[in-house]
Amino acid sequence: MMITNEAAISLAGVFPPIPTPFDEEGHVAHGPLTDNVQRWNEHDFAGYVVLGSNGEMVYLTDQERVEVWETVREGTPADKLMIAGTGCESTRQTIQLSSQAAAVGADAVLVLTPHYYRGQMTGEALAHHYWSVADALEIPVLLYNMPRFTGVDMDAPSVTRIAQHPNVVGIKDSGGNVGKLAQIVDSAGADLQVLAGSASFFLPALTVGALGGVMALANVAPQETIDLYDLFQAGRLEEAARLQRRLIAVNTAVTAQFGVPGLKAALDILDYYGGPVRSPLQPLGELEIQTLKAILVEGEVL
Amino acid sequence: MMITNEAAISLAGVFPPIPTPFDEEGHVAHGPLTDNVQRWNEHDFAGYVVLGSNGEMVYLTDQERVEVWETVREGTPADKLMIAGTGCESTRQTIQLSSQAAAVGADAVLVLTPHYYRGQMTGEALAHHYWSVADALEIPVLLYNMPRFTGVDMDAPSVTRIAQHPNVVGIKDSGGNVGKLAQIVDSAGADLQVLAGSASFFLPALTVGALGGVMALANVAPQETIDLYDLFQAGRLEEAARLQRRLIAVNTAVTAQFGVPGLKAALDILDYYGGPVRSPLQPLGELEIQTLKAILVEGEVL
Amino acid sequence: MMITNEAAISLAGVFPPIPTPFDEEGHVAHGPLTDNVQRWNEHDFAGYVVLGSNGEMVYLTDQERVEVWETVREGTPADKLMIAGTGCESTRQTIQLSSQAAAVGADAVLVLTPHYYRGQMTGEALAHHYWSVADALEIPVLLYNMPRFTGVDMDAPSVTRIAQHPNVVGIKDSGGNVGKLAQIVDSAGADLQVLAGSASFFLPALTVGALGGVMALANVAPQETIDLYDLFQAGRLEEAARLQRRLIAVNTAVTAQFGVPGLKAALDILDYYGGPVRSPLQPLGELEIQTLKAILVEGEVL
Amino acid sequence: MMITNEAAISLAGVFPPIPTPFDEEGHVAHGPLTDNVQRWNEHDFAGYVVLGSNGEMVYLTDQERVEVWETVREGTPADKLMIAGTGCESTRQTIQLSSQAAAVGADAVLVLTPHYYRGQMTGEALAHHYWSVADALEIPVLLYNMPRFTGVDMDAPSVTRIAQHPNVVGIKDSGGNVGKLAQIVDSAGADLQVLAGSASFFLPALTVGALGGVMALANVAPQETIDLYDLFQAGRLEEAARLQRRLIAVNTAVTAQFGVPGLKAALDILDYYGGPVRSPLQPLGELEIQTLKAILVEGEVL
Repeated sequence: MMITNEAAISLAGVFPPIPTPFDEEGHVAHGPLTDNVQRWNEHDFAGYVVLGSNGEMVYLTDQERVEVWETVREGTPADKLMIAGTGCESTRQTIQLSSQAAAVGADAVLVLTPHYYRGQMTGEALAHHYWSVADALEIPVLLYNMPRFTGVDMDAPSVTRIAQHPNVVGIKDSGGNVGKLAQIVDSAGADLQVLAGSASFFLPALTVGALGGVMALANVAPQETIDLYDLFQAGRLEEAARLQRRLIAVNTAVTAQFGVPGLKAALDILDYYGGPVRSPLQPLGELEIQTLKAILVEGEVL
Repeated sequence: MMITNEAAISLAGVFPPIPTPFDEEGHVAHGPLTDNVQRWNEHDFAGYVVLGSNGEMVYLTDQERVEVWETVREGTPADKLMIAGTGCESTRQTIQLSSQAAAVGADAVLVLTPHYYRGQMTGEALAHHYWSVADALEIPVLLYNMPRFTGVDMDAPSVTRIAQHPNVVGIKDSGGNVGKLAQIVDSAGADLQVLAGSASFFLPALTVGALGGVMALANVAPQETIDLYDLFQAGRLEEAARLQRRLIAVNTAVTAQFGVPGLKAALDILDYYGGPVRSPLQPLGELEIQTLKAILVEGEVL
Repeated sequence: MMITNEAAISLAGVFPPIPTPFDEEGHVAHGPLTDNVQRWNEHDFAGYVVLGSNGEMVYLTDQERVEVWETVREGTPADKLMIAGTGCESTRQTIQLSSQAAAVGADAVLVLTPHYYRGQMTGEALAHHYWSVADALEIPVLLYNMPRFTGVDMDAPSVTRIAQHPNVVGIKDSGGNVGKLAQIVDSAGADLQVLAGSASFFLPALTVGALGGVMALANVAPQETIDLYDLFQAGRLEEAARLQRRLIAVNTAVTAQFGVPGLKAALDILDYYGGPVRSPLQPLGELEIQTLKAILVEGEVL
Repeated sequence: MMITNEAAISLAGVFPPIPTPFDEEGHVAHGPLTDNVQRWNEHDFAGYVVLGSNGEMVYLTDQERVEVWETVREGTPADKLMIAGTGCESTRQTIQLSSQAAAVGADAVLVLTPHYYRGQMTGEALAHHYWSVADALEIPVLLYNMPRFTGVDMDAPSVTRIAQHPNVVGIKDSGGNVGKLAQIVDSAGADLQVLAGSASFFLPALTVGALGGVMALANVAPQETIDLYDLFQAGRLEEAARLQRRLIAVNTAVTAQFGVPGLKAALDILDYYGGPVRSPLQPLGELEIQTLKAILVEGEVL
């Protein structure tokens, strides 16, 4: 394996973890997917995460996954990264799916912690998993820590240890423990690029050394999230803080409060294609849609 | 749909949720699987659960899953049930996989609660999921509640409501809340056959109205679990209680304490085929194997 | 210390953990307390637990606590036990308060796990705590495990170890893990008398070797809980199971669902003295009271 | 009530939540307490929190509490605030204890969320509690949210609502959810001064609008925590971030990792008076002390 961290891609900036559009029959809607990507291309994103939690990854077949990556790859300019979410429960399926992602042009893979047997997912087991995946691939690997969905929360020493592998280059951490992010930045240093996994703590994460963020909010408020990043880079901290605070409620609405159905409903409201979710997820009710609209207006996104 | 609860299969008795054997290359080992089933056939089990949590279901491809069911079906006498674990995250994949299970001869399917987006898995969403699956199948559906792995814990009112569908005939509940089981028996009545999902509370569950159990322990202590069931049926409660208490530590060893690696190691010790687990699960260390042996001896299973 | 487990009191039977009545000014209402006890005395209880969780123990001053014990002691016949809840956060205050309980005639003390610094409440720390209390007292000590309120859940090995002290004679476990109760009965044997801490799993607990129960439900359904105990003792298991199932919903209403305010409202409905709770607890609203009444009627308690 | 938020005290800056020293017999050691305060007085703290979680508040009698406040008040210069931790489970005891704190010169009280009956601690119940306390006092009230110890985690809307009372002027939030802090700053505005409750997220909290912090680390690394605050005020964000990262491991050692025993051991190492903890807390073992020393050295605090 000749890849070294030094040669690795830069993850600095904002990445929307894009949703997967379905048509009314429940099939992947590739046309609307392309249209959405075209609109997002107008913003200065560092790239896209395709098939993270917001992409309903767990509801797609392997074939659908590959096709979604192909469509997005085609629509993504060369100066933006396409990061493919490829984490499966088994190491062998994660490797196989990651290889398919690489074959269709993914620049990196984002690998969710396996978690079904969470009692057995020790630091040892996770290191074995990630190192096996990183060994097998020619493209770099990002760790994906998402305790709210998985019940597994990697701590700073485990992350730092896994990051010693030269082909592990980054982490998306959605847990919201900014102290832990600071500790990872401190101990992993140049071995690992840290990305905030939610807009709710984007500015705080940048402050302690994160280089960017992968956040649902970037789908519905692309320019605002980029502005927040730019204001921080420019040292305009007070303006950044005001924007950060303004966006919290909108971010909550399209994540913890209404979930992926809320994200898709917000996209519909904002004239992107949101469309239906796959069952067992249920669409928002009319009352919830009105609440969501009010939150978008209040947050100056609509 | 002509199936009614009255016509449904009886779930009374003991079911081992059998593990899936792999060879040293990590492929499904069908020969050893058949051998294990032959030995278990010597005991008076009500049937087998194939691809529950102990079957490493989440680590198999769909093709492997179907092949495992075919092998077990072939080895299972007609007077025993084969119940196939078929729960996927999406309703559509659960239906598709369940249909494949039915096609290769499963008598019923055991459907784990979808759980990745656990915040959205309301009673409403779960009812929609289970009713869609039950509508689509010609074989009966059992609910599978496993909060330790999923973070989702269906309450008694939700279960009772879902059980109103004539093709939902049973539940395996592994949560250990025996009060809840009693409440389900009380409110669902003849609509639902309740199975204890772990040997740790088998006798208590029988006492409040459960009809049987699906438990990892039955793989390694087949006669003891059947004896426990028979003692209860015969009204020999004190002997049953003694046996229940004696088996607790062994049960813990092959479930919460050492997980599926512990179950497989115990099978190896007991001259069944246990074999390797799939990564990211890790095999027991030598010290853990010695501890496990001591527990098996102490519990009079070895 | 001459006390040995062999000489210790018998805890077999049913104990209501009685609430503390307050008047409209919020003072302890000793008259109504005496009246309630007189009515409960008509039932064949093994005794009373005075100042457990249902007694709003955490809301009373030390002086009020002693006065409550005095009043109940006076009203309790000699053939019933008075067990005083005396668990404080510090070992020294627990010893002091327990000594006061002994001085006013308590037959035993029930000592809640200290829990504020739960991360530090290791088996070692808890053993030190309980052994210090047991060393200091001339009356026996019962452990009180209540994870729903404390966040601390003693496991079977810890309990068994603590029970080796000759003056630790029993445990009230409200956690609902009946498998753990079985394990404690198995490993602690004659060292420890196990009491179910809630009616939701009373019969299951008896089945695996518990000797009785301390349960909120006994306050509002005294005869039903005693009947359940007697039916089990008489080997009439099916009738016991039916009664157990019938009582679940009522039990939930006066515990997890409506809490102490629900217990007191149920007492008011049943012509005991319930009266107000202390703030920050809030009284039930009118709608909740109607729901509670319906549950009492449905459970044939009203 | 003439007090208004505008007239309220300023909470900007760093506050150590000081531990309570005990002598070898377990009595409060007032001499060492005074000595510690004298040394801390050399640093530019905004004041002291006396009897927070680090003060072993739950292990003291009311009389001991008042005496501790008297000693600290006497040792505290007039330009520093003394904030007394006074939260009890009942509203009435909280009011009484808070009044005693005011009588001996506390500038404000810090009131922990009541939590024993956590299922009943709704936003409604907490508002009733805090407003009753705030109504009864002539000195201002700070909310204290500490989910790791209490299991109660007030959300932003609840906090904002409670903050509408003119005598509720601040919150110490130890939960680490910086997104929530941002939301509180946004919605409560001038009604509430937000303090970070742990050094692990001090800089991130300042970034989104917190005005200061109450943190165990300030006891053992007083100048470093003040430097961090000053660097942020001076806009020297990169230096602040480096210092924040350097201090994380030390902070963890004296909080989540080793708790109050760790904090006291660190003080002993640093030539303050740490001394023994009260049981059931246990002192660190020799190995833990060596680990702690190594962490202090690594963090450049020793």
